[in-house]
Amino acid sequence: MRPSEQELENLGDPETSPLRDSSNSHNPTHLGPPEAEGRKQRGEGSPYLFIQLNELLGNPPTQEWRETGRWILFEEKLDLEARRWSSPHVPTLSLSSIWELRALLTTGLVLLDCSVQSLSELTEQVTKVESLNPEVREKLKSVLLQSPQHHIQDMCCSAARRLSTRLCRGKHSTKMSSAEEPPLKEELQSPLWQKLPPGTEAAAVLVGEVDFLDQRLGVFVQLQESVVLGTLTEVPLPIRFVCMVLGPPILGKDYHEMGRAAAVLLSDEVFHWSVCQASSPQDLISAMDAFLEEVMVLPPGRSDPTERIPPPKCLSTPHKRLPLELQESKGSCNESVNSKRDRHGYEYEPQHAIKELQRTGRLFGGLVQDVRRKAPWYLSDFLDAFDAQSLSAILYIYLATIANAITFGGLLSDATDNAQGVLESFLGTSVAGAIFCLFSGQPLTILSSTGPILVFERILFSFSRNHGLDYLPFRLWVGIWVAFFCLVLVATEASVLVRYFTRFTEEGFCALISLIFIYDAIGKMLNLTEAFPIFRPGPSGVTGFTPHGCLCYFPDPKGNMSLLKGQSQEDMDAALGMDLHLVNVSLLSPPDCALQGGQPRGLGCHFVPDVAFFSLLLFFATFFCATILKHFKSSHFFPSMVRKVISDFSMVLAILLGCGLDASLGLSTPKLTVPSKFKITAVILNRKEYQLQKGAGFHLDLFWVAMLMLLTSALGLPWYVSTTVISLAHMDSLRRESEVCAPGELPRFLGIREQRLTGLVVFILTGLSIFLAPVLKFIPMPVLYGIFFYMGMAALSSTQFSERVKLLLMPAKYQPDLLLLRHVPLSRIHLFTTVQLICLGLLWAVKSTVAAIVFPLMLLGLVGIRKALEWVFSPQELSWLDDPMPEENEKKVQEEKSELIYQLRAPEINISVN
Amino acid sequence: MRPSEQELENLGDPETSPLRDSSNSHNPTHLGPPEAEGRKQRGEGSPYLFIQLNELLGNPPTQEWRETGRWILFEEKLDLEARRWSSPHVPTLSLSSIWELRALLTTGLVLLDCSVQSLSELTEQVTKVESLNPEVREKLKSVLLQSPQHHIQDMCCSAARRLSTRLCRGKHSTKMSSAEEPPLKEELQSPLWQKLPPGTEAAAVLVGEVDFLDQRLGVFVQLQESVVLGTLTEVPLPIRFVCMVLGPPILGKDYHEMGRAAAVLLSDEVFHWSVCQASSPQDLISAMDAFLEEVMVLPPGRSDPTERIPPPKCLSTPHKRLPLELQESKGSCNESVNSKRDRHGYEYEPQHAIKELQRTGRLFGGLVQDVRRKAPWYLSDFLDAFDAQSLSAILYIYLATIANAITFGGLLSDATDNAQGVLESFLGTSVAGAIFCLFSGQPLTILSSTGPILVFERILFSFSRNHGLDYLPFRLWVGIWVAFFCLVLVATEASVLVRYFTRFTEEGFCALISLIFIYDAIGKMLNLTEAFPIFRPGPSGVTGFTPHGCLCYFPDPKGNMSLLKGQSQEDMDAALGMDLHLVNVSLLSPPDCALQGGQPRGLGCHFVPDVAFFSLLLFFATFFCATILKHFKSSHFFPSMVRKVISDFSMVLAILLGCGLDASLGLSTPKLTVPSKFKITAVILNRKEYQLQKGAGFHLDLFWVAMLMLLTSALGLPWYVSTTVISLAHMDSLRRESEVCAPGELPRFLGIREQRLTGLVVFILTGLSIFLAPVLKFIPMPVLYGIFFYMGMAALSSTQFSERVKLLLMPAKYQPDLLLLRHVPLSRIHLFTTVQLICLGLLWAVKSTVAAIVFPLMLLGLVGIRKALEWVFSPQELSWLDDPMPEENEKKVQEEKSELIYQLRAPEINISVN
Repeated sequence: MRPSEQELENLGDPETSPLRDSSNSHNPTHLGPPEAEGRKQRGEGSPYLFIQLNELLGNPPTQEWRETGRWILFEEKLDLEARRWSSPHVPTLSLSSIWELRALLTTGLVLLDCSVQSLSELTEQVTKVESLNPEVREKLKSVLLQSPQHHIQDMCCSAARRLSTRLCRGKHSTKMSSAEEPPLKEELQSPLWQKLPPGTEAAAVLVGEVDFLDQRLGVFVQLQESVVLGTLTEVPLPIRFVCMVLGPPILGKDYHEMGRAAAVLLSDEVFHWSVCQASSPQDLISAMDAFLEEVMVLPPGRSDPTERIPPPKCLSTPHKRLPLELQESKGSCNESVNSKRDRHGYEYEPQHAIKELQRTGRLFGGLVQDVRRKAPWYLSDFLDAFDAQSLSAILYIYLATIANAITFGGLLSDATDNAQGVLESFLGTSVAGAIFCLFSGQPLTILSSTGPILVFERILFSFSRNHGLDYLPFRLWVGIWVAFFCLVLVATEASVLVRYFTRFTEEGFCALISLIFIYDAIGKMLNLTEAFPIFRPGPSGVTGFTPHGCLCYFPDPKGNMSLLKGQSQEDMDAALGMDLHLVNVSLLSPPDCALQGGQPRGLGCHFVPDVAFFSLLLFFATFFCATILKHFKSSHFFPSMVRKVISDFSMVLAILLGCGLDASLGLSTPKLTVPSKFKITAVILNRKEYQLQKGAGFHLDLFWVAMLMLLTSALGLPWYVSTTVISLAHMDSLRRESEVCAPGELPRFLGIREQRLTGLVVFILTGLSIFLAPVLKFIPMPVLYGIFFYMGMAALSSTQFSERVKLLLMPAKYQPDLLLLRHVPLSRIHLFTTVQLICLGLLWAVKSTVAAIVFPLMLLGLVGIRKALEWVFSPQELSWLDDPMPEENEKKVQEEKSELIYQLRAPEINISVN
Repeated sequence: MRPSEQELENLGDPETSPLRDSSNSHNPTHLGPPEAEGRKQRGEGSPYLFIQLNELLGNPPTQEWRETGRWILFEEKLDLEARRWSSPHVPTLSLSSIWELRALLTTGLVLLDCSVQSLSELTEQVTKVESLNPEVREKLKSVLLQSPQHHIQDMCCSAARRLSTRLCRGKHSTKMSSAEEPPLKEELQSPLWQKLPPGTEAAAVLVGEVDFLDQRLGVFVQLQESVVLGTLTEVPLPIRFVCMVLGPPILGKDYHEMGRAAAVLLSDEVFHWSVCQASSPQDLISAMDAFLEEVMVLPPGRSDPTERIPPPKCLSTPHKRLPLELQESKGSCNESVNSKRDRHGYEYEPQHAIKELQRTGRLFGGLVQDVRRKAPWYLSDFLDAFDAQSLSAILYIYLATIANAITFGGLLSDATDNAQGVLESFLGTSVAGAIFCLFSGQPLTILSSTGPILVFERILFSFSRNHGLDYLPFRLWVGIWVAFFCLVLVATEASVLVRYFTRFTEEGFCALISLIFIYDAIGKMLNLTEAFPIFRPGPSGVTGFTPHGCLCYFPDPKGNMSLLKGQSQEDMDAALGMDLHLVNVSLLSPPDCALQGGQPRGLGCHFVPDVAFFSLLLFFATFFCATILKHFKSSHFFPSMVRKVISDFSMVLAILLGCGLDASLGLSTPKLTVPSKFKITAVILNRKEYQLQKGAGFHLDLFWVAMLMLLTSALGLPWYVSTTVISLAHMDSLRRESEVCAPGELPRFLGIREQRLTGLVVFILTGLSIFLAPVLKFIPMPVLYGIFFYMGMAALSSTQFSERVKLLLMPAKYQPDLLLLRHVPLSRIHLFTTVQLICLGLLWAVKSTVAAIVFPLMLLGLVGIRKALEWVFSPQELSWLDDPMPEENEKKVQEEKSELIYQLRAPEINISVN
């Protein structure tokens, strides 16, 4: 008696349920929760059944019904003393309580398809059938008709609120329950009620000790039509099932445990379905047996009974438990594991994307195909954007893009020591991004100057300088050739080769770029301490200079300064420092001296104290601030919304903090200097001048964008773009998720609001940000270096590679229980890691030598090495250590289902590390 | 058929077991593991049964037995692909597999008290009884006689080791198994074998698919005498049980699951006991039913089947599952929860210590009682020390004491700006500690200048200055009075009142002292930036001074400097700075200038650049280094021994790092200056001089020690001492723990090596450390401040109070699942926290005003407030939020057993915060 999948999906949905007629929806007592937008997405799975356990507490004369537990998917227990709901947890039952319940219901009263409209009718039914003497029957009726006391959770838990709750409880108790009573305001405002989707039904489990019964009484009622039965449940849901276990007070806690057993049984989807199908009491017992067949058992004394098992990250669906022929390719958990995301952190690469990478065999065939595929969606790409979510996405992504442009632009402009680079970065990002957004295949991609481009550009720069080439024309030609090759690649559909860039290649490259960031950040900080030397006490002969040697010299009318004219200023100052017999001197500071017409003289005049150490402080402060704020998301303080905002804007906040710290002390730290010719009024002029000065850059940008655009079109999912952290953040901010209805359930991913508008607006705003130029001069360089350092560390630590490097240092005993470790011998993992480390060393060596110009080719070298590894490692091992290469694609997928739990959830492959 | 407790304890111990004769020990095949010291402690619980699951893997012609799992308390699964044992975890079984096993054994072959000496005899027995045709019987025999392949875990997992293991496996396969074969060297060296206590027996579970059987065959054999059966198990233990499930290959994985079910059943102590008692096959089935009665059940689809449940922190013993009348006050888990340690982190306060705090009613009665109690142990207090553990304890505690003395002494000497304080601290600690160690009731206590004493001393100092009192006589009198009152307290046995200092009081005081530390550390760092000002550019009129204004003046023969003689040096320099018309000047640095007979002039001469920021860097570096190293213990890198050492010496390492950083740059940071009169040769002189100079201090120390000694004697467990972190560390380093035998089991605490010698040696070494004086001048003050800051933060965060303050900021949804939160309403917890915060504010206010002198009385005030809280909070709430006060002691203890898991494991009450 297994439910079919369609039946499970329709279960409980009054409109489509095959199990009952649809008169429910016309029933005046049917009070579904208000229909909220987005609720309708539910219903594709099985519906929720809300189960409430009411217990008869207290001693016989003053007994009252109290809600002590509730279930949807997981159990929530009411901690009576603390007056709070426990966090949702996996229920554990004693096997004997299920057996007891089974025994009781075998001999007890089972009413299937019972037709009642109110609690009193139900009570009548329950007590009529039972062979009880009239006195006991009356007593039982009066007990069952007592209104239960629900725990309506007060959110802020203040004493005042509790008082009001008590008052409202008082109100409850004075009323007789009936179906006609409107639900209380508190009930309709409870967060549970707000969340439950329409169509949710309820089950009430009533257990307790009564002194007037001589033996235990078990009742199971399935109502023909679900109906709200007074205040039997804390929220006014129509009730489908009622289960009662009442008896004399002999066995202590048993009633509670039997009630829990009944509730857990009802919360099981397959049991629920079976009971709906049941036509005789025997079917009910069979359904219990079927449930017992599937339970897992914990041996006694091996686990802590007070510990509450937290809900798993990944919930297997009831489809999994269906007969084998029905469950093929079903099960949300299963599905998500098979998609690339759960193996390797790609979140947005469905399997069919790989299919799009099949060659057509015609020139530009892939491109044409992409255009054909994308064109029909073009209009909806704009219309889909009209949603409140888009606004917040725009704000967030704009700030992230700006922060990115400032940091990368800052690095670009480091050589020229002015903010030109940042403004270039704004303009370049704006133009390239907007074009890309309008025409690309992946409109959610955010373009910006990223790590690899920066590295490439710097390699080109040093190469041209070493070979006496004029940089800008050289760069232009490189750009043209790159674009040409790219076009050739597009034409020949060679972009399918991107499939050969497996995690091995991507992580090697990512690690290299991270290391370059870290190395550069530290190197630049050391340069700073050279530019602003630290004064160390001791004989001046040792340290070479003294901060005290500066005085203000007012020109001698006799003009004896002219003797020294041929020498440089520093030489003169040094000569003066030795011993001087001048008159007309003062100890004014250099600026004051210049103001009063004198000339500062002495080596000490060039000394700026404190800057070196303050820069170090700024550097570390920015780094730690960014790191701590980023991790704030996983702390438990403040509502999750606040934490998310703080975490998302960690870089912006860190930059602001650094600038604030710097401004508050007013030290002359090195800063981005804004060229005076950049005025707001001079944007257009500058744009032109910009082209003149660094035209090739602009062209290369455009070519790069063109190439990317073509590449993207050809790929459907280009590697360059899908690995960008900001793009992922953009998609994340446009993520559509199911609303969580059951406590403890994780939201399901429904898709992404795919459109072009948010990106376009972001890039227009970015372009307008060149008006920010005057603000940029307040950003100290050490702050930017701190951000680079942070980005390098963050990207490095997000790779599986770095996890494996850590394993090298961990004794086997303390290693985490990764699925990888369950399937690949440790020595093989270490071997793979060592190969990657050697490759990284080679890449670094190539980068540092003249061979740097062939750097992009090294990526192909990595692919070759990865291919060669197939001789050393078995396909099974490689499938755990790396992505499969195309040939291996046909190999069977692993069976274990929830690597998700063990793998890091962060996107692991961030080639662009921005 | 429940085992009695005594029976459970004796189970499997061949000497005392009532279940079998003792001929086992004379059996030549009985190969118990070597007897190691400390092993005999086991046997008070039930013995271990090692269970191994051997599976027939491969296809019929090439089938071989492979070990795939093993159990003692928890399950270890062999991850075949990764060739490694999983970490020990709680086994989960499917209920159906137990049922299947039960069904199979009901109809199968059950041999109880079977007498066999070798595997071939066993095979004979198993196949003889069964009604099989001769051909099948022979096939079955040959399969059962195949040697199994065990996974002997190679610790370093190197390829070379694996090779040798393979070779040794090859050896295995060539041998026929027989009981006479000596165990392999590899087997005897395996870590498992080394750990298992003597008396451990084994059970072998053999499951597999064979093609020659038509139906499943279940066999359960209990041997009359346990015997080593060849290489059936990976370690040559005598086997008591053999369980076989063999059958045709129809049901896939069922055999594996049934084998696991059998193994888990055997690993259950009560089942084990029941089977030993069994006289008929029906008894075996009854034992399985009894097991099933007690299992917990996880509903299907609610938990992740691939997740391995880690072993619980606290394992309930089988006593718990005995009939109620037998289990009274039994169960190790239960017991430890009832002791104070598990509620509040006191680790060494057994219940009887409270009993020792009963008044005798006679003058000095408690003291006399203490001496009587302690005297008989005095000799053993020295003899017990001779153990290797004592040596490492001495080294560790000595370094901790020295680090403590340097930091606290550094703070003491902060005013005088020399290392006198540190040396005083060394001497004082040494003398006081040694005396205390020799005569105290708690010889493991480490005395040192701790936080409260420091605070008290500073309050006294500022009070005496404010009231124009001479500090030293004043301090002497205070000391005498304190000691007098203490003696009175001892005489009147008022020390029983110490029971009123509950956690509320202790945490309030601890938080105050932590805050004082933090406040002082920050305040002193700010003072540093005043002493070493930061140069900010800008008009000199704004910043007040310029670093450039300093020149070297060679005295004018005409002597016109005399005009300025009446003024102070700074005034003169300021005047010179304005405008000067001097001849004979030079720009030499101040030291060089002085060297050449000139005089440095100008405000800039007093300017030392870079020191302020470098001090800040040192401060933060020390703080972070100490914090990170301290937490290194809980990381997973390196063996636990290395981590423990690094963590234990975090403060020493942080100080060394700070000093190294400072020395490498050679900046003139403020340091501890060592008085020149302190020479090595001058120890005795100084000791005398020390008494002369600060005699009162010494006397007070002695009085304090005398008082403490008396107090300690009176208390048995004084509050001052039991809360010192170093004392806890001392005891921790002398901790005796049971060796862990079963994987996943936590070691049990057996007691502490109680003796006086380690402490004595530590204090003698501390006294000798005054020879370290010349080294102290290399310690920069910012490093010490960093350590203070760290100590303040660490002590503050270790209190339950700070946990509760954090709850104020956490939405209820994200709060951790603390038992406290399950039992006390959140609003009540917040109210309690708020009261504590207000008290803390009051204490701070008192400390900062003239009322500071009554500061010690404030502690009594806190006790009063705590008493008053009994009007606001119910006793039940207070028992969760605080220790019970004496009157509440009789109230019943809470029922939940494992708060240990939810509470922080660190000692929570560190009044002395050192």
